[in-house]
Amino acid sequence: MERVLARDVNKHLGKKILIEGWLHKKRLLGGLTFIAIRDRSGLIQIVVQDKGEVEKLRGMQVGTVLRVQGIAVEEPRAPGGAEIHDPQLEIMVKVSAEPPIEIDKPLSHRPENLDTLFDQRVIGLRNLDEARIFRIRSDLLRYIREFLYKNDFVEINTPKLVAGAAEGGAEVFKLDYFGQEATLAQSPQLYKQIMVGVFERVFEIAPAFRAELSATTRHVSEVTMLDIEMGFIHGHDEVLNMLQDLLYSVLARVYKEHSDDLKVLNAPELVVTPHFPKYSMQQVHELYQKNTGIDTSSEIDLTPDEEKWICDYAKEHDGCEAVFATGLPESKMKFYHMKGEAGTAMSADLLFRGIELATVPQREHRHENLIEQMKAAGIDPDSPGFSHYITAFKHGLPPHGGCGFGIDRFTEKVLGLSNVKEAILFPRDINRLAP
Amino acid sequence: MERVLARDVNKHLGKKILIEGWLHKKRLLGGLTFIAIRDRSGLIQIVVQDKGEVEKLRGMQVGTVLRVQGIAVEEPRAPGGAEIHDPQLEIMVKVSAEPPIEIDKPLSHRPENLDTLFDQRVIGLRNLDEARIFRIRSDLLRYIREFLYKNDFVEINTPKLVAGAAEGGAEVFKLDYFGQEATLAQSPQLYKQIMVGVFERVFEIAPAFRAELSATTRHVSEVTMLDIEMGFIHGHDEVLNMLQDLLYSVLARVYKEHSDDLKVLNAPELVVTPHFPKYSMQQVHELYQKNTGIDTSSEIDLTPDEEKWICDYAKEHDGCEAVFATGLPESKMKFYHMKGEAGTAMSADLLFRGIELATVPQREHRHENLIEQMKAAGIDPDSPGFSHYITAFKHGLPPHGGCGFGIDRFTEKVLGLSNVKEAILFPRDINRLAP
Repeated sequence: MERVLARDVNKHLGKKILIEGWLHKKRLLGGLTFIAIRDRSGLIQIVVQDKGEVEKLRGMQVGTVLRVQGIAVEEPRAPGGAEIHDPQLEIMVKVSAEPPIEIDKPLSHRPENLDTLFDQRVIGLRNLDEARIFRIRSDLLRYIREFLYKNDFVEINTPKLVAGAAEGGAEVFKLDYFGQEATLAQSPQLYKQIMVGVFERVFEIAPAFRAELSATTRHVSEVTMLDIEMGFIHGHDEVLNMLQDLLYSVLARVYKEHSDDLKVLNAPELVVTPHFPKYSMQQVHELYQKNTGIDTSSEIDLTPDEEKWICDYAKEHDGCEAVFATGLPESKMKFYHMKGEAGTAMSADLLFRGIELATVPQREHRHENLIEQMKAAGIDPDSPGFSHYITAFKHGLPPHGGCGFGIDRFTEKVLGLSNVKEAILFPRDINRLAP
Repeated sequence: MERVLARDVNKHLGKKILIEGWLHKKRLLGGLTFIAIRDRSGLIQIVVQDKGEVEKLRGMQVGTVLRVQGIAVEEPRAPGGAEIHDPQLEIMVKVSAEPPIEIDKPLSHRPENLDTLFDQRVIGLRNLDEARIFRIRSDLLRYIREFLYKNDFVEINTPKLVAGAAEGGAEVFKLDYFGQEATLAQSPQLYKQIMVGVFERVFEIAPAFRAELSATTRHVSEVTMLDIEMGFIHGHDEVLNMLQDLLYSVLARVYKEHSDDLKVLNAPELVVTPHFPKYSMQQVHELYQKNTGIDTSSEIDLTPDEEKWICDYAKEHDGCEAVFATGLPESKMKFYHMKGEAGTAMSADLLFRGIELATVPQREHRHENLIEQMKAAGIDPDSPGFSHYITAFKHGLPPHGGCGFGIDRFTEKVLGLSNVKEAILFPRDINRLAP
């Protein structure tokens, strides 16, 4: 007999079918024993009456792998509108121990202590709500890629073992590479710009590594990054528009295709317009001061509170909780960004639900200007980590721009989680290298 | 005026259009100057007659980024069936140096010395044939993912910074992780098995790291791996069938959608059937000995020459150049494989065009048996690198199996390249950490 998935039981009403899955829950109700079986498609409820079958359930632990034959019956109150009657239970894999963490509670009942959550992650992920998070994350990746394919982007895989730190400065992991010093790539920045010279439009979704010394809800040492780069742009706006269209299409799609899951997870309502409002840094500072009395005009960046504030403001004022902060100051620039006018960089921050998802600059594509900017940043353009990069510019790169976009943070914000680590299967931070 | 891509020029015949791209080639023919402009869609030929315009081309280097306005004209002999007449050339980005490597030769004319090829990779990739390789690679990834989504697989991202070496034994890169020793993941083996307990069917496409001390055409220290794992299987064959269907669908699709590219690259003709032939290791040894006189019966693995031979044999005998070698000996087993009958493992090698693409085992899913096998392999099940893994089994994992499948090697074999590094944008080996 072929296995039927939990979600398909209602297509077999009145027939004897075979279910396979994990014992997820057992309960007694009005003299009847109900069990819930979990498989990859969800839960199916099984009503056990026969004494011999009830006896099999005695002491049976959650996680036990079962094969159940029984009759599919309509039951509007059961998940999926169907349940199984007159079951015969067969143990496929016996489990002797109680689970180390409850897996039948909604997310709001998760342990307060995230360390407990992550210590017990292996079993905790069997919670249906946890699984929802990562199923949605998988689909976010799919939607992103489908948008990019449609827009002529080519997927690339660039090395994570590199000779130098691409962006200088920030903390990098170092290792011995057959006697040489190698670092783990913090981003594919240099490679994706090189690849603009080949495909114009490229993207990569891959791990990136940062030896973050801070132990906060924001800091992890391994992230999954979407990196995008596009050439032959006719102004910085073209990059912003591409990212805006990507984000809008992915958000609209996930809220459409996962509306039930998002409701169960208490994700916020989506408030976006196809065109995201733009505010210059200076405008944000002014609006913020006018409304809060706090003067932030001397900050080179938006303060965390301003990031939250401007998203709330745009949500109310423009009906869009995604917003671009433009005209970032030159002092925040990296050497490969293009200078803008009057002390600004050709760069904008994309903010969503109170947090920066990506910095979106146009790059400096002119060979000579780039070399000047590298020298000003104290980087030797002829050093082994950069000479190949420079070669791409020497032999012609068109105007281009792009961004790195954190998949973990994006998933966190889509779902309204409180910590980026909750959107990562097995997070890594300064204190955590397992599981 | 909006930019028209090279591939679309033939849709604008008779009209004045704008082209943007790189100067790819210049030549004089019968008193006329022809230039080819490269953009992300391919090449477009431009006929330059006007003396002022011809003058602009003097000394202009390949790689110069150009904006060209001119009339789209039908020309059956030109690539794409069209060319541009009466052009006005405008330099967007000036290039002063000659390219360090010729980019206008077919692949068969690449430098003999692969070191030269990889040293000049940044510019060499602008060769249209090189770009074809990596555009096809991007599409192979897309086809693979689309097949897996259709078959209910969930994409996961597992950590590459791990506490212990997942598979023991083999060479690993080590690094300091805030005072602890971490290793770079050689595979997501343990994590994907854990995730079977959540989603039943999972996959990941991600970098994997191996400190390979050998300097051969096969060995690289960073690879892109497709990892698959599926639960609730009813026998080893179910895993083999899934992989067979995946491979068949991806191969059929790439040969259909990229037939022109594959012809240009001199890729071999595809000879596959929907069902791949299966030969036991013993049968392979016997057939091989019968045909070559060489006795390999004492080998625990197929020899490289046998791998080639059996693929050729199956191609001729079964009309299929993909083949499973089944009944691998128990002595080749890893601790997490399931034992088969009579000294064999429940494991098979998938061979394609003379090389092993993947080892495809059923896993040992029974908690107690697994612990026994770990101990026999000298691994402490309670050690920090393995305790979480064991927890997944303790709380119920169904029968499952899967494989790791090298994307680089697969791309190499699809295209008939001679070295896996040719299928990697920026390969890494014992001697190479740049570009």
